[in-house]
Amino acid sequence: MEHAVTFLPANRTARVPTGVSLIKAARALGLHINSSCGGAGVCGKCRVKIEQGQVEGGSSEKLSAADLAAGYRQACTALVAGEVTVRIPVESGASGGAFSTVAPERQRARMHLFDLEALKQEGLFEPPVEKLCLELTPPSPADNRADAGRMIQGLAEQYGLRQVAVNLPVLRRLGRVMRENNFLITVTVARSVNGKFRNQIVNVQAGCWSGRNFGLAIDIGTTTIYGQLLDMHSGAILAEEGDYNPQISYGEDVISRIVFAEKAEGLATMNELVVAAINNLIRRLLARPLPPSPGLSETPIGREEINSVTVAGNTTMTHLFLGLAPDHIRRAPYVPVSTFFPPLRATDLGLDLPPHALALVYPSVSSYVGGDIVAGVMGSGMYRTGLLTLYIDIGTNAEIVIGNRDWLVCAACSAGPAFEGGGITHGMRAARGAIEDFSLNPETWEPMNITIGDRPPIGICGSGLLIIVAALFRHGALNQAGRFNPIDTPRLRQGKNGMEFVLAWEADAGVEHDIVINEVDIDNFIRAKAAIFAGAKTLIEEVGLSVADLEQIILAGAFGSYIDLDAAMTVGLLPEVAPEKVLYVGNGSLMGARMSELSNHIRRDVVEVVRKLTSFELSEVRHFKDQYVASLFLPHTDISLFPKVSRWLNR
Amino acid sequence: MEHAVTFLPANRTARVPTGVSLIKAARALGLHINSSCGGAGVCGKCRVKIEQGQVEGGSSEKLSAADLAAGYRQACTALVAGEVTVRIPVESGASGGAFSTVAPERQRARMHLFDLEALKQEGLFEPPVEKLCLELTPPSPADNRADAGRMIQGLAEQYGLRQVAVNLPVLRRLGRVMRENNFLITVTVARSVNGKFRNQIVNVQAGCWSGRNFGLAIDIGTTTIYGQLLDMHSGAILAEEGDYNPQISYGEDVISRIVFAEKAEGLATMNELVVAAINNLIRRLLARPLPPSPGLSETPIGREEINSVTVAGNTTMTHLFLGLAPDHIRRAPYVPVSTFFPPLRATDLGLDLPPHALALVYPSVSSYVGGDIVAGVMGSGMYRTGLLTLYIDIGTNAEIVIGNRDWLVCAACSAGPAFEGGGITHGMRAARGAIEDFSLNPETWEPMNITIGDRPPIGICGSGLLIIVAALFRHGALNQAGRFNPIDTPRLRQGKNGMEFVLAWEADAGVEHDIVINEVDIDNFIRAKAAIFAGAKTLIEEVGLSVADLEQIILAGAFGSYIDLDAAMTVGLLPEVAPEKVLYVGNGSLMGARMSELSNHIRRDVVEVVRKLTSFELSEVRHFKDQYVASLFLPHTDISLFPKVSRWLNR
Repeated sequence: MEHAVTFLPANRTARVPTGVSLIKAARALGLHINSSCGGAGVCGKCRVKIEQGQVEGGSSEKLSAADLAAGYRQACTALVAGEVTVRIPVESGASGGAFSTVAPERQRARMHLFDLEALKQEGLFEPPVEKLCLELTPPSPADNRADAGRMIQGLAEQYGLRQVAVNLPVLRRLGRVMRENNFLITVTVARSVNGKFRNQIVNVQAGCWSGRNFGLAIDIGTTTIYGQLLDMHSGAILAEEGDYNPQISYGEDVISRIVFAEKAEGLATMNELVVAAINNLIRRLLARPLPPSPGLSETPIGREEINSVTVAGNTTMTHLFLGLAPDHIRRAPYVPVSTFFPPLRATDLGLDLPPHALALVYPSVSSYVGGDIVAGVMGSGMYRTGLLTLYIDIGTNAEIVIGNRDWLVCAACSAGPAFEGGGITHGMRAARGAIEDFSLNPETWEPMNITIGDRPPIGICGSGLLIIVAALFRHGALNQAGRFNPIDTPRLRQGKNGMEFVLAWEADAGVEHDIVINEVDIDNFIRAKAAIFAGAKTLIEEVGLSVADLEQIILAGAFGSYIDLDAAMTVGLLPEVAPEKVLYVGNGSLMGARMSELSNHIRRDVVEVVRKLTSFELSEVRHFKDQYVASLFLPHTDISLFPKVSRWLNR
Repeated sequence: MEHAVTFLPANRTARVPTGVSLIKAARALGLHINSSCGGAGVCGKCRVKIEQGQVEGGSSEKLSAADLAAGYRQACTALVAGEVTVRIPVESGASGGAFSTVAPERQRARMHLFDLEALKQEGLFEPPVEKLCLELTPPSPADNRADAGRMIQGLAEQYGLRQVAVNLPVLRRLGRVMRENNFLITVTVARSVNGKFRNQIVNVQAGCWSGRNFGLAIDIGTTTIYGQLLDMHSGAILAEEGDYNPQISYGEDVISRIVFAEKAEGLATMNELVVAAINNLIRRLLARPLPPSPGLSETPIGREEINSVTVAGNTTMTHLFLGLAPDHIRRAPYVPVSTFFPPLRATDLGLDLPPHALALVYPSVSSYVGGDIVAGVMGSGMYRTGLLTLYIDIGTNAEIVIGNRDWLVCAACSAGPAFEGGGITHGMRAARGAIEDFSLNPETWEPMNITIGDRPPIGICGSGLLIIVAALFRHGALNQAGRFNPIDTPRLRQGKNGMEFVLAWEADAGVEHDIVINEVDIDNFIRAKAAIFAGAKTLIEEVGLSVADLEQIILAGAFGSYIDLDAAMTVGLLPEVAPEKVLYVGNGSLMGARMSELSNHIRRDVVEVVRKLTSFELSEVRHFKDQYVASLFLPHTDISLFPKVSRWLNR
């Protein structure tokens, strides 16, 4: 249920669901409330006054009984429970006037799903493995066709399915199965994706079981592995699970995994770890209680009812999963063993699935544009749009794809780990206590730290870093080169690594030191965003277009969902486009894997898409280095590329 | 080296190779020489006089020094060594005049091979698995295609091979193999049999090894298993081995094997036995010293160099080999599990072959017209001839195929085991001491017994039985109903089973009793030949033709090579055609397996041939029973079907 929350003196109203804190409701409108402790309710800086209506909670030892009686609450712990009007007092941050808002409204990318209904409406819902019920006539003296021939001809007559082959395990059971229920059988058919292979009968059961057809979508990330259990009959997601990729103990990035895989037994170890992790996910997915699903009985799903699995991952993860030596991925000229993978038996890969289960592995484009990106391009529908689209998946590497249904170019950018908290003094992964959102009062330089889990801040995660740098830059604390201007606040001080800005004093922090951001951190951030922007700009200019021609941006990856669009366009991470033209697809790799599980058409199209995807090795492209250097500014040396920033910068 | 051997008084000359006995030379011309002891040199009845030239051997204690000096020798042990003139004295059998010959010239079917050179000339020599050498350019910054893509594109550029898929085991070794010999590799490709599906890369090796490509052809008979090791590069047969089918301990015929397979673990036992026997054959084939073969080095062939195997057998043998339950083969309406079999991994069948080796199993037509017959139809070239052909494979069952390149009909006839010595008082398999050839002096009723291995006779094998019945009938000892006429000889006597004729007295035999043939034996023989002839006649009349339209007969099976054509047409086993129109193909099943190994075209055509092969269940065909009863005469109740026999019968 949503409620109107009106903030004074700005007199701006947000509609937020029950239970959202006042501080987050304010932040969504771009209103600043001082908050050092990350919303943990300890610093006492975020006091606001309830002028009308009620909130839940918000009391604290920092507030006297008189304060409470007068309607004062802490904005970070006061939760919306109904329509309410709230005044932000001067001492809490917003002085009214010019600073009644100090940040643009929170604007994140619109969630976009290439969804099931669309798939069905377009006639693309066709799982690669189907279960078909066949009622056959029993043999007679006048019709003593072989069992297999009877079944195959039944498929042709009853379903129009031709070019069918039967494998040996099915033949070995066929006679018994056919006679168990008087020649009523269910045939599990793995359809040829493109007519280049025969349709394979991979299983037979006595009786009619067409409604029991399940599949898996798996994303093998360098850090995390996700899996979804799918009802292939309805297309519904029945369960989702995730876990760390256990290879992480042998190195956080792909290079260190490759180095380990080159050791004796290293590849086998890497392979066994990821296979075991996926098997564990499968176990957990099957153990989850089933959500209600149309046409699906409550009978628990048996492992033997899983008929297919689609796996997507970057090129190195794919190699390690398949047991392919990744050695040459890390050495110039960066050659993978293969970018296409044949349809496989899941059991041949060590997966705890029935012998008939089919495993499909997403193809890669190159060593650094992997199956995860291809899956994203497929799953997001980018390969079918007419709009000139920029697809970005930001992780340790950022992979960029530009194009539309007619052409596609791609490249990997070494963004470095800044967006994952790496190389930043107080950087951290997006975990509890990480500053994920931020605003700054440009009069008092008091910050509004919003942390994951509303804990006292212990560090800065990627989305926080982006928004902190954008706020410091926007309010003049940073210049275009990423150096601090001499602003008058004790929060700016000389540190070990140049000037630093204190985001939270130790007293308000969850750790025993101040939480700061310094010029080296900002440098690292700028290098990361410059690599991405320069990559995109180089790519699009290689095909004779410019960033101004972009009509759509699709963000993928965990980071993508948290990117504040205004911040990203302020610092020059993303080109300036209207915020409504930015879509977020979440885990593009997992989404693409699911879409392929549900649609043979997508499986078929992927081959053509990969052939079409022209991969650039940016280090080999002449102008990339220049583009990169030009991007090492906030937002860019060529300010004309960012007309909105240009307007306030020159004000 | 051949020599002219002239026999007097007939004054007929045979050309025979060095070392052939005089008695066999005489027999080949249809000349009779008394011989009771089977050519063992003990009865002394076959004395002949050398009138010119020399022979080797032929002396015996039955011949005095004076006899020897006068040029007398025993025809059975006197071997041709040069040009020679031999007189057969009256007492030895031929009285001259009307009886200077007492049997037609020995006429067996012409050996026919659908041979390698013909295959090559017609452009059909194309093994299903090829080894192709590829010299690839190493990767560079400007060309960092994946290893697999480089190989696949190399195959397209250098061999025009497209639509190629790579399997996982190959991918797992590919990076190392490519770099071991600077990107010179040998690719083993299993070609799509019909061009509709992908060609599979099943192996890669460093260096160029295109000349080392080996295959196996295997025939699984109910009694015997044969194997050939083939050089797939030249097409040559490098080795051949045979052994009993060890399932024989569980029953001699397919029905008893099926009954056993229905027991608990019975199918597994049958399967393991045949697989072990084939593995043993493979071991022996590989252990055989290699014959000189063009382009083949003397390096012994390694098991891992065998890339494919083609297996043919009857429907039950095929089921047991594949581990398919044969239960319904023996029960009306006689339904096999499958008649077509997918290409398989040899290792999935338990064969001791490398993981990449492909196993192809010949399709069947029905429960009783199996892959062995289909292989014969393919291997003999029957499916490509314009001549209206009768193909017969005689074993316990006789399978019959009639047709040509345009149409084919087939059926199995329950001939019974008479041709294998079963159900005949002194019947035996074709082994040492078996009477395999025979003639009769119609004046003295003295026989000329020729045995396998020139041993004193111990029984009668199939070819002997046929020729004995034919001789007795031709000379009036038997009437058309197969009963003895009252001829004046002590050799004809009342026995336990009606009248019997003594072929060899105990004194001349290798056993301690007389060797006889009685009226029950003759009855059983007539039933067997009647089943076959009636089957062929029924089939051909079902398609609106008559036996007189037949232009060619192809005999297959061990028995086929020994059939005396005149005898077969005298008793009404085969329809009367000119002897030169009868071909013998030996083990048709093994031959077909070999041809499929060497020619993808034959593998492709077999699918269409099997679809074309219309199978008749004779017991379901209206007129078969009448035809059978009409055939229970020598040669037939309708004597007009046998004009040659008719001529001398009515003389």
